[in-house]
Amino acid sequence: MRATVMHAAGDVRVEDVPDAKIEQPNDAVIRITRACICGSDLWPYKSLDPAEGARIMGHEAIGVVEEIGGDVTNLRKGDLVVMPFASSDGTCEFCRDGLQTECVHRGFFGVGAEGFGGAQAEALRIPNADGTLYVLAADSDEALMPSLLTLADVMGTGHHAAVASNVEPGKSVAVVGDGAVGLCGVIAAKRLGAEQIIVLGRHADRTDLARELGATDVVAERGEEAVARVRELTGGFGAHSVLECVGLDASTQTAVEVARPGGAVGRVGVPQEETMAGGRGSFYANVTIAGGPAPVRAYIEELLPDILDGAIEPGRVFDRTVDLGGVPDGYRAMNEREALKVMVRP
Amino acid sequence: MRATVMHAAGDVRVEDVPDAKIEQPNDAVIRITRACICGSDLWPYKSLDPAEGARIMGHEAIGVVEEIGGDVTNLRKGDLVVMPFASSDGTCEFCRDGLQTECVHRGFFGVGAEGFGGAQAEALRIPNADGTLYVLAADSDEALMPSLLTLADVMGTGHHAAVASNVEPGKSVAVVGDGAVGLCGVIAAKRLGAEQIIVLGRHADRTDLARELGATDVVAERGEEAVARVRELTGGFGAHSVLECVGLDASTQTAVEVARPGGAVGRVGVPQEETMAGGRGSFYANVTIAGGPAPVRAYIEELLPDILDGAIEPGRVFDRTVDLGGVPDGYRAMNEREALKVMVRP
Repeated sequence: MRATVMHAAGDVRVEDVPDAKIEQPNDAVIRITRACICGSDLWPYKSLDPAEGARIMGHEAIGVVEEIGGDVTNLRKGDLVVMPFASSDGTCEFCRDGLQTECVHRGFFGVGAEGFGGAQAEALRIPNADGTLYVLAADSDEALMPSLLTLADVMGTGHHAAVASNVEPGKSVAVVGDGAVGLCGVIAAKRLGAEQIIVLGRHADRTDLARELGATDVVAERGEEAVARVRELTGGFGAHSVLECVGLDASTQTAVEVARPGGAVGRVGVPQEETMAGGRGSFYANVTIAGGPAPVRAYIEELLPDILDGAIEPGRVFDRTVDLGGVPDGYRAMNEREALKVMVRP
Repeated sequence: MRATVMHAAGDVRVEDVPDAKIEQPNDAVIRITRACICGSDLWPYKSLDPAEGARIMGHEAIGVVEEIGGDVTNLRKGDLVVMPFASSDGTCEFCRDGLQTECVHRGFFGVGAEGFGGAQAEALRIPNADGTLYVLAADSDEALMPSLLTLADVMGTGHHAAVASNVEPGKSVAVVGDGAVGLCGVIAAKRLGAEQIIVLGRHADRTDLARELGATDVVAERGEEAVARVRELTGGFGAHSVLECVGLDASTQTAVEVARPGGAVGRVGVPQEETMAGGRGSFYANVTIAGGPAPVRAYIEELLPDILDGAIEPGRVFDRTVDLGGVPDGYRAMNEREALKVMVRP
């Protein structure tokens, strides 16, 4: 069969490769009817070292089920399906929690040796086909195919950024990046009811499309100037929700800086350099990093009744009491770990 | 009046200072009946440069209202009050959102020149007294004073870490740090219904207390060994919620690494070196950083109906269609920003 093979940075060829075929009983083989090129495919296109090995590219597709393995029960030959960029068994505890990208049997398409085949091809083997593929109505409108194809990655990814950054009705949103994910982030923010949607981008054709899709403001500045402009557009405070749809350190820094205090940044741009935000580890594991100085004034009302009725006894953290004159020695004792926490009775 | 003044690292003295008095019409002056020393007070105790200026210390107190300014309406002389570590007006949009630490009129106690006075003293001026002070019942039990005092900071801070890390009934929690905040984090996690509470600490007296307060497991290891141990205790995956109660880069790294994929880290340890996690900016502004690879499989069900009825048209991000043979040129076009996103019809 024919497939797109990337051999090195800038070296993409369409070649004959071995036919996709059933290898495991939970496999399916799909004939690809639509695939696409992802912004993330451009990273190896810019930097792939031939030593890393050639790879069949593509991780987003719509296709028709051509063959199924003996253990596949949810699919039939001829089904029209969406193929998400990762395969998942659909039954493990991560899949049940809706985090299929962490499936204990997950695998990624189009990423080379350690992953599966790619979708920029005539056909593709789908491991864990029952859990991975989503069956569409057989009579799906041809005109909807481009939009249905975005369910394989880019629309779901823009939506994830909106969900992770807590987009809510009436709130302000900033979208960092005017690529396809950023534009889908605009669609997602509007769909979730955001009142103000500011897109940060400098390609007029893309930001024009962003406006058509729901953006209320466009910020073409970058760095500090972009931060100042977003604050100006949001009453001086920044946006409640920020969708980071680029993946560079500078764009991530901008995303954090345009967030309103107490707001959230939803990151979906695959980290390309990443020295910040808990490292790549926190990104790939979808780990949220939250917190900061506690608004303790807000919590008194909730916690006080539990102290009054003895349900909690946080006062047990004090293991020494001093008068004012004893405070200097209290510092010494805490610093030397001799005391846990010192109470002062002036 | 007498107050605790820090002149330089290790140099803490109790001295005569000018009496606290009303300066603004929204001020109150409280006589301090309980104060305490905070783990965060130990940072200047270790490192304060005399050039930064001497400061009256202390930001946690219970006191009795002694005087009020002309604009104060919620307080009366003689009221017993809790004083949170930050002052807040109680009326701005951040206060209404429950983020009083971002109040547009906020100020901090016990931090030197740019802040207000300190609570390790006989008395203290409280700006924005109406919004800042919380009135307790006049007949509050003496025996409860230590626990009530923790509402000024340490218990609210432990609770904030638990809230920020989404502690929920039945879930697993890891608490990094066995200081007073960590112990209050254990109390908060138990109070919110966590099933498993693992405390990471190596001071036996503190981890023993943690067990009494609700911890189910103690991990005395550090770094990679601690990560391995927490994973072992949590079925191999890590904890749903992690409370970072230390504030060092190493402890924050450990916190991120012991989190289960899809989990959350709630940071309340004041960053002391902080090169990670969006920098100090994200901490001080309570900005959440979330996201990662999108579980697009989970989102198809939600998004598909909106595509089918035309409510959203994410397919508009495709601005070029090629057959397989056109894929290499599609890469070139996307890389050169000539195409936004290329669809492939094999």
